Amino acid sequence: MRTIDWVDGAVELVDQTRLPDECVMLRLTTVDELIEAIGRLAVRGAPALGVAGALGVVLAHGDRDAVARLRAARPTAVNLAWGVDRAAAHLPEGPDAVLAAALRVRDDDIAACLAMGERGADLLETLGSPGGLASREDAGSREGLTSREGAGSREGVGGRAGGLRVMTVCNTGGLAAVERGTALGVVQTLHERGRLAEVLALETRPLLQGARLTTWELARMGAPHRLVTDSAGPYLLARGAADAVLIGADRIAANGDTANKIGSYALALGAARAGVPFIVVAPETTIDPATPSGEHIEIEDRGADEIVTVRGVRLAPEGTRALNPAFDVTPHDLITAIVTDQRVIRP
Amino acid sequence: MRTIDWVDGAVELVDQTRLPDECVMLRLTTVDELIEAIGRLAVRGAPALGVAGALGVVLAHGDRDAVARLRAARPTAVNLAWGVDRAAAHLPEGPDAVLAAALRVRDDDIAACLAMGERGADLLETLGSPGGLASREDAGSREGLTSREGAGSREGVGGRAGGLRVMTVCNTGGLAAVERGTALGVVQTLHERGRLAEVLALETRPLLQGARLTTWELARMGAPHRLVTDSAGPYLLARGAADAVLIGADRIAANGDTANKIGSYALALGAARAGVPFIVVAPETTIDPATPSGEHIEIEDRGADEIVTVRGVRLAPEGTRALNPAFDVTPHDLITAIVTDQRVIRP
Repeated sequence: MRTIDWVDGAVELVDQTRLPDECVMLRLTTVDELIEAIGRLAVRGAPALGVAGALGVVLAHGDRDAVARLRAARPTAVNLAWGVDRAAAHLPEGPDAVLAAALRVRDDDIAACLAMGERGADLLETLGSPGGLASREDAGSREGLTSREGAGSREGVGGRAGGLRVMTVCNTGGLAAVERGTALGVVQTLHERGRLAEVLALETRPLLQGARLTTWELARMGAPHRLVTDSAGPYLLARGAADAVLIGADRIAANGDTANKIGSYALALGAARAGVPFIVVAPETTIDPATPSGEHIEIEDRGADEIVTVRGVRLAPEGTRALNPAFDVTPHDLITAIVTDQRVIRP
Repeated sequence: MRTIDWVDGAVELVDQTRLPDECVMLRLTTVDELIEAIGRLAVRGAPALGVAGALGVVLAHGDRDAVARLRAARPTAVNLAWGVDRAAAHLPEGPDAVLAAALRVRDDDIAACLAMGERGADLLETLGSPGGLASREDAGSREGLTSREGAGSREGVGGRAGGLRVMTVCNTGGLAAVERGTALGVVQTLHERGRLAEVLALETRPLLQGARLTTWELARMGAPHRLVTDSAGPYLLARGAADAVLIGADRIAANGDTANKIGSYALALGAARAGVPFIVVAPETTIDPATPSGEHIEIEDRGADEIVTVRGVRLAPEGTRALNPAFDVTPHDLITAIVTDQRVIRP
């Protein structure tokens, strides 16, 4: 399934705000409908927004004003403007050229995610092999809440003996892209190869993308998984519950420092202490050579509302203030490898 | 205010299940009412359960069967049985002796928390002084989301310039004890001394004791505070947002390894990397000489329900499995100091 696509003259996309309760496809035929969908986060995820931007230019039918409004629909989403620009560059050539350019943006994302999935899975399969990514002996105590054998055999699905147990945060799957995602794309490839034992998905407060979206995607692909609270992640790594941590990236600085969903840094600390490989999966376009290091990445604070309420239910007393950094920066010394659609980088 | 007390022949306690929406005092006159309140977590927290157990023996009026039922009301709560036993030992001496013993349990808790508060605040006040707990220079980069001066001055309350910014997890305040708590008792003493700039309270998934209870207690004491998600804690430490981390303890092994609410270990990793002191505050009775190290502490898994729903609202797809360790173990090498009612231990 494609979570966003061009179908019979319209943009069709999964309304992510309705997940996991129901999977509703929206059919959008005007730029304003698309802008509205973007604004309320019906579509989210950097690659998906790039594709939405490109396809949206087709809906504009040459209306430059509509293109400009679409480009500004979410100012902080760099990929949206990038996707709009890639298609809009062909406006002088007429509608067929614009459509072709927009479909290339879509197809390039599909191809990049496939390439990341293969390359990441290849890398993970070296786990435990001599000269591979990490030897099992490095990884601290292996007793604990979950035994490697237990995760697969208890459920009788996925992971034959020796399959990999992967921990991840946020949603980096097809919902954030077109067909496959970044970190979750690697998980999917491992699963298709019969090499996945289990995914431990962090719930990802405050917006719970892990609980709502990643579990939904894993269930659809038939991959064994369990949900855990964010704060349990580092401790479960210490207890030997996962063989690798896979995350996506919002921006990678020139020195390898990586900005990603809040919670990634804590996982990186836990992985380093436990000797578990910590792997970033992101398209080459995420690397920003103009940003020398993580210190230069500004972190957005998204305000108290997301924290003091969950899906409309109040959690904290009225008037409670909050500090809500949406992202964090993981220093490159805590990153084992960065897997892109073109290469593997070891910072 | 006492969150649990003996008033005119009855046990009175705050119904913690109603917080933060409303503060309701329950008046319990029979052992069965008390058992029911304990069972549905209207009263929680190790010291508070010890006091509840002792006062409950008074309500039993010499009925040994009722005493036995009370003692077994929450099998995993060691303090409940301990409190029951302390009062029940005086049953042969008659009701006045039982009441006196129960009130001693209450008063001992109040005194222990006061002592921890003073000792912990004294220790924290050495922060930054020559030869003190940690010099400011150790603590990594100080730029970031919050400046030390900003937290107090922006609100115009609490923390005069130079006050301390403390991060904590779960609820370790009066609600978990009688008048003052353990880690939050230290916060309260700092606040009374005019030395508290701000508290960063972690929300503490899955049961949100930080969001529901700690914020409520901090608001009542007029202490400036902000709520943060659990996964933001380690990153905020890296950004220099707090001068110390204070946590409670459920059990401390002989070598100093400390079991506490899930999330404590991740904070300890963050504190160690940032050079921020990580301090455990717990009564001497929490130290268990029979447990040589953290490896010998069994961690309870509380099941999926707490994670896939929040206050009755479903977060994850139906049928999602979860891994829910309620506690974690912080190795002693990550702990700067353990403050008890009798001493300061540096593991």
